[in-house]
Amino acid sequence: MTRYLEDTATERLEADEREGLYGPLAEAVRALVDASIRTEVDDHVIRQATADLERIAGHLRAHQLPGSYGVHSEAPGRRRTWGSPVIGVRNPIAPPLTLQHAPDGLVWSEFRVGTAYEGPPGRLHGGMAALILDHVLGEAVSASGHWGLTGTLTLRYRRGTPLGRLRTEARIDRVEGRKAYVVGSIADDEGITVEAEAIFILPKGYVHPDATA
Amino acid sequence: MTRYLEDTATERLEADEREGLYGPLAEAVRALVDASIRTEVDDHVIRQATADLERIAGHLRAHQLPGSYGVHSEAPGRRRTWGSPVIGVRNPIAPPLTLQHAPDGLVWSEFRVGTAYEGPPGRLHGGMAALILDHVLGEAVSASGHWGLTGTLTLRYRRGTPLGRLRTEARIDRVEGRKAYVVGSIADDEGITVEAEAIFILPKGYVHPDATA
Repeated sequence: MTRYLEDTATERLEADEREGLYGPLAEAVRALVDASIRTEVDDHVIRQATADLERIAGHLRAHQLPGSYGVHSEAPGRRRTWGSPVIGVRNPIAPPLTLQHAPDGLVWSEFRVGTAYEGPPGRLHGGMAALILDHVLGEAVSASGHWGLTGTLTLRYRRGTPLGRLRTEARIDRVEGRKAYVVGSIADDEGITVEAEAIFILPKGYVHPDATA
Repeated sequence: MTRYLEDTATERLEADEREGLYGPLAEAVRALVDASIRTEVDDHVIRQATADLERIAGHLRAHQLPGSYGVHSEAPGRRRTWGSPVIGVRNPIAPPLTLQHAPDGLVWSEFRVGTAYEGPPGRLHGGMAALILDHVLGEAVSASGHWGLTGTLTLRYRRGTPLGRLRTEARIDRVEGRKAYVVGSIADDEGITVEAEAIFILPKGYVHPDATA
């Protein structure tokens, strides 16, 4: 986890404009992810769609970052997270989550997941719960003014998590030296389904920035 | 994790044919997932692509499963896994992994991950490592002739995992009553980057099927 600098006013305006362009593209691809799994249209429609999608991908790839987003985009401020598989508005794998920050340091989000995230029938894949929780727990560390890399992550699955509308939250528990201890959960309307705890470790050679929470 | 029945010869032939239709569709959408994050083409090309993709999604959705794949597809044999976010040939979120089974019960896979799976710049998102390991560990339980639902999953991140070519493996450690203990890892060319251990628990009311490994 890294803590990102705030955008300037000019950067905010430009980021809004870029998000209005890239967000709908990713959303259209998200719809295709879902359709790829669920479609039952005739074979010739699927073959035509496949050919059309390959052609469009070619157009989009005519000019692109030479490697991964994080390495090559050099994006300022909030755009640094646009490639994220959890919160990235440019990443169709991401639901995406919109993270909320409470004054007491709690980080939370309400979000929806569909068939692309399915493990057991009708249930969220346990590994997808882990993906979401790893990210939200890291954000809670960042929100506390600390940062670090995930050292250990432990998930306890209380019961199956249904697909649909869910809530996740995380908060920092304590900081001991270079280690930040953080806890969180995923819940449906009836309560917690998955609990998580993690230790984020500040790599040697780094110092904690000033706490801002 | 559930253990799936083998396909009959007729089902295998039909499954091959269906995979040859749906696989390329998902692969085309995977290319679009990557392009959505990395594209730098002009705004008007992105707007046109977005409109075209929305139209194609509409065609694919004209006739589709009414809900999630696992609940509604009633797919026999190996097709049950086609919606999986880790190994699903119909799920563009999945890399997808092709799982290999060694005679001693080891389950392993070599696979590639790109920018859609990125956390820190150039590195696999820690939660994506968790997603992959949860799935492969569950498969190792299944391959041993047991099954169960993930009870706890613990990940230890030794160092950053680079994007690109990776290997994962898992094996069952022991079974105690209703609990199966399983361990696994993700590695790059220089060795293990993430270790995992999990306990899969057979729900009450179920009995272990005969071990087949």
